[in-house]
Amino acid sequence: MYGPGDVRVEDVPDAKLHEPTDAVVRVVLACVCGSDLHPYRSMLATGDGVPMGHEFIGVVEEVGAAVTGLAPGDFVVSPFAFSDNTCEFCREGFHTSCVHGGWYGVGGVGGAQAEAVRVPQAAGTLVKLPADVDEALWPSLLTLSDVYLTGWHAAHMARVAPGRTVTVIGDGAVGLSAVLASKRMGAERIILMGRHTDRTDLGREFGATDVVAARGEEGVAAVLALTGGAGSHVVLEAVGHLPAYEQAYGVLRPGGTISRVGVPQYEQAPVGFGSLFRKNATLNGGPAPVRAYIERALPDVLEGRIDPGRVFDRTVDLDHVADAYQAMDSRHALKVVVRP
Amino acid sequence: MYGPGDVRVEDVPDAKLHEPTDAVVRVVLACVCGSDLHPYRSMLATGDGVPMGHEFIGVVEEVGAAVTGLAPGDFVVSPFAFSDNTCEFCREGFHTSCVHGGWYGVGGVGGAQAEAVRVPQAAGTLVKLPADVDEALWPSLLTLSDVYLTGWHAAHMARVAPGRTVTVIGDGAVGLSAVLASKRMGAERIILMGRHTDRTDLGREFGATDVVAARGEEGVAAVLALTGGAGSHVVLEAVGHLPAYEQAYGVLRPGGTISRVGVPQYEQAPVGFGSLFRKNATLNGGPAPVRAYIERALPDVLEGRIDPGRVFDRTVDLDHVADAYQAMDSRHALKVVVRP
Repeated sequence: MYGPGDVRVEDVPDAKLHEPTDAVVRVVLACVCGSDLHPYRSMLATGDGVPMGHEFIGVVEEVGAAVTGLAPGDFVVSPFAFSDNTCEFCREGFHTSCVHGGWYGVGGVGGAQAEAVRVPQAAGTLVKLPADVDEALWPSLLTLSDVYLTGWHAAHMARVAPGRTVTVIGDGAVGLSAVLASKRMGAERIILMGRHTDRTDLGREFGATDVVAARGEEGVAAVLALTGGAGSHVVLEAVGHLPAYEQAYGVLRPGGTISRVGVPQYEQAPVGFGSLFRKNATLNGGPAPVRAYIERALPDVLEGRIDPGRVFDRTVDLDHVADAYQAMDSRHALKVVVRP
Repeated sequence: MYGPGDVRVEDVPDAKLHEPTDAVVRVVLACVCGSDLHPYRSMLATGDGVPMGHEFIGVVEEVGAAVTGLAPGDFVVSPFAFSDNTCEFCREGFHTSCVHGGWYGVGGVGGAQAEAVRVPQAAGTLVKLPADVDEALWPSLLTLSDVYLTGWHAAHMARVAPGRTVTVIGDGAVGLSAVLASKRMGAERIILMGRHTDRTDLGREFGATDVVAARGEEGVAAVLALTGGAGSHVVLEAVGHLPAYEQAYGVLRPGGTISRVGVPQYEQAPVGFGSLFRKNATLNGGPAPVRAYIERALPDVLEGRIDPGRVFDRTVDLDHVADAYQAMDSRHALKVVVRP
């Protein structure tokens, strides 16, 4: 990506091992992330371009000398951030703060919207998948790279559990994933705030019990009415813009939790007596340490209890990645698979 | 209080029952709160004046017809906010959001820096104390009205537990109470950030293992150095000003919790990728629902396991309440008992 709306497909040098802890993985499926739309809309143009894509499943082609537990031919899923899985922050479940961790497309590491990608800290990062898995499950396995487990992270941080009322703000792929994760955690009442009927319909299939199309004050009033005036125990904010944040504390019940997984496109926001403090609100969330959750979610996908891959509604090849961005930006597609 | 620095002691009509759920309590001990200093420094002057004081122990003089479980002569402690102790928010432990609750000194309810006070929702609000309790314990019992249990609330919301490193920002009475509460919850490492040696010395006696006098970037660097660069699992922010908030996220470990009990003197603050989000920080806290904690803390005081009343270092009678404010504002006193 070279600037807003400027996505180019280019030949680059083949991915190869740089460090003994690296692996090279041939990408089987990748995809475009809602967070990729932020630079697509507003990045500063750059002459060098930025490699894009951070979600993929693939086949290991080569491993460095220090990589244990992986061999060429292994079918794997990668979290959207790499990590050693052994440092003190990883051990506490916060792999996105790994002391040896980092991000695809940054600092000499390539992007996953590509034929192959170098994976740093491969032993800690990659999780093996069954070799013989049905291709129909590939899209759902791909969601373990980011989108489903980002929704899971939101719900996990907010301690979603039976008896909790959950409001999800945003009907994008992360919001819908947060609905599915909340349902999987036992939430009985899940209110989805979103305006796109095709998306909220999928949200209902994922477990949403109520849909609120209104936004702002009107949307807040609607959620309060649905909760007998008390508000929602949990709000999962999957947008990242300030109005969604304001909506979040508006619908929150005293003592409740706002968990954010939409990357905030703001730095300052209300946190004082008029917003969070008076209510004893909890605010949390952040970049999802999906590595912490993959092993737990994998059986749910392999055994068919959940089908998070339904968030994908289009597939492109590498030559048409620019179309994928355009389709998602214009909301003609919810989330697009890239199949090299 | 009529304006900044303008505290007057006046004769007002005797406290009396207004509602059948009221009680009238003769004040035995009250005190001045750190939060009282905010209006003392910056309130808009008012011709009517505002009744002050919200912490007290006392003796019930009269109860309304609907008040159960209390009788004239009972020795009681009052939380700083009244509540019915039965609504859905009280049942979830957030009494400061009680649907029938409210605050002393507001809306026709008097203040506790007085000879007597009307207590709304008396059955839900007041907690009985043993009739024969040693007078030496009175100051510690008074702290159950606010200051100790506000510190407790901070630590409780941040889930302080054995193995957690806790940093307390602020060496006022609430900060020192947060140290004591953290110690009581089993924290082994408690870093107290404060500049007043007489106060931080008491903090050490309460359980602080380290004291950092530096503030701002220098203070952050010192705490990071004490924690091997990783930062503190828990930060208890007991000041309420923006620099303390900034210090809090500066010293926070990834995945850690900032719990605030200093009433925020700001509404907007950083919460985005550069402050909370990147670290998966949790931010919580609010007005302490001390009613939820009194029964648990009471045996600790009565049986001498803790002595939170040591935060009081001066006593005045009602005629000298203005001196109490001045002494606390100028930091000549940490916290002042008012004995009518």
